[in-house]
Amino acid sequence: MSVLVVGTTALDSIKTPKAENPRLLGGSASHAAVAASFFSPVRLVGIVGEDFPRRYLRLYRKHGICLEGLQQAAGKTFHWAGEYEVNMNKRQTLNTELGVIENFTPTLPPAYRDTPFVLLANISPSLQHHVLDQMRRPRFVIADSMDLWLNIALPDLLRLLKRVDAFVLNDSEAHQLTDTDNVIAAIRKIHRLGPRYVIVKKGEHGAILSGPGGMFIAPAFPLHKVTDPTGAGDSFVGGMIGYLASRKGSIEANLRRALIYGSVVASFCCEGFGVKRTTRVARAHIEERVRHLERLARF
Amino acid sequence: MSVLVVGTTALDSIKTPKAENPRLLGGSASHAAVAASFFSPVRLVGIVGEDFPRRYLRLYRKHGICLEGLQQAAGKTFHWAGEYEVNMNKRQTLNTELGVIENFTPTLPPAYRDTPFVLLANISPSLQHHVLDQMRRPRFVIADSMDLWLNIALPDLLRLLKRVDAFVLNDSEAHQLTDTDNVIAAIRKIHRLGPRYVIVKKGEHGAILSGPGGMFIAPAFPLHKVTDPTGAGDSFVGGMIGYLASRKGSIEANLRRALIYGSVVASFCCEGFGVKRTTRVARAHIEERVRHLERLARF
Repeated sequence: MSVLVVGTTALDSIKTPKAENPRLLGGSASHAAVAASFFSPVRLVGIVGEDFPRRYLRLYRKHGICLEGLQQAAGKTFHWAGEYEVNMNKRQTLNTELGVIENFTPTLPPAYRDTPFVLLANISPSLQHHVLDQMRRPRFVIADSMDLWLNIALPDLLRLLKRVDAFVLNDSEAHQLTDTDNVIAAIRKIHRLGPRYVIVKKGEHGAILSGPGGMFIAPAFPLHKVTDPTGAGDSFVGGMIGYLASRKGSIEANLRRALIYGSVVASFCCEGFGVKRTTRVARAHIEERVRHLERLARF
Repeated sequence: MSVLVVGTTALDSIKTPKAENPRLLGGSASHAAVAASFFSPVRLVGIVGEDFPRRYLRLYRKHGICLEGLQQAAGKTFHWAGEYEVNMNKRQTLNTELGVIENFTPTLPPAYRDTPFVLLANISPSLQHHVLDQMRRPRFVIADSMDLWLNIALPDLLRLLKRVDAFVLNDSEAHQLTDTDNVIAAIRKIHRLGPRYVIVKKGEHGAILSGPGGMFIAPAFPLHKVTDPTGAGDSFVGGMIGYLASRKGSIEANLRRALIYGSVVASFCCEGFGVKRTTRVARAHIEERVRHLERLARF
């Protein structure tokens, strides 16, 4: 089944102690759409400016991503510039130019409105609402977010939590949202805010899923070198929903393995700048790492 | 089979925002010995002063712990006083009185020298060496440590790493020891320092085992409330070696489940001050949490 992905489509300039990487393909929707495309057909909703390189459009298409919902507008593409410290754990934003995303209204092509799986990747909650408003009874909706929206758009975000099936956030965001330091206690509180499924991302420590079928502690795929973690969280949710949409049976029955597939795609994302490594991965490589992760977690 | 545990036997005064808990039974050997005692007979090597409460000796005995190797000397028992912040993640040492441990020479009772499983729980590396020097070809030796010894006794510790089968340390210590921020890369470097098995503790994020049979990512038992994490790491290694000593078959075949049992005993440790919760646990409770953890980690 198809997956609709809405989020940012951006150019990222990523500086590390060793290299500068200007104007990489980035943004939450780009990472998530590429990740989902390994498993299911993807429909992209986003906006780019006149400066958006044609080769990135070709890259989306190479992944079979439908671009009917990708607006191209007069002005500049959303541009994020950031710098990582030596250990790749700390980053700081050097510059953010909103460009065309500032006046973005994601109007869906009619054909998109029946998409059964919807990923509201990280973008402002008001735009996530706007997309949901146009959907006709989707089967499963996942929302991702970031600390920025907790800080400046909390009421919108809280309203969104009552409209989605699953909410994904990282551990520090879970602590901030619930004012709780214990992640298990935080998850309980987040369920009370609406979502039936709560998924907490913990980076190299894996992820925790909580839902009607109980909890699942998902390991991360161990990497001995991280080149660029930008987009790993987006790749995780993208891989997850792409896998879910590809499977028969209930969501509940497939969700644990969906997290594993998400973890594996995220591990590839970390091994290259932007989507460089992810876009060179074949499905067979993913399956190989999934089998490896099974061996690493068995007891 | 029996387990020899050497480490500190202490009195801990633990302050939290909610309570003061003076002179609890503490120390690495106390936590580890209690944890191991659920699975195997334990022989304790340590030293206490004249002020050591008789009820704590009774508590050891209740757990079937052999005290022939516990010296009682003139002077005061090692006393550690610490304070936890609200979130239980940060603690600071308020006071350390070495007492009788300052002149401790752990001379083993003859009957102890053939003990097949040896846990060198956290204590100075020179004392860990001294114990090993007296052992006759133990089957499996695990050493634990702490950042203090990395800082003030690194040469002794490095020499110890060439004499043990398994080395256990937490992630920040692994980073410090190898000057590496990536835990997987750190593990590779630690293997080169000697130990065939390296086990990195990550607190609430579980643990990673690396050995000849590959890597194992062990989940932690999820707790929605942590009362006092003091001794959790000691309980982890104690539970681990106690379980190992209780099993037939190769170390390799049992080590993954040993980490799981260690995690579960550590989870009980966190639920009470000192050993208060751990000493009230029955083996059946441990088995129940192990089964629960199996369900949480399955995919």
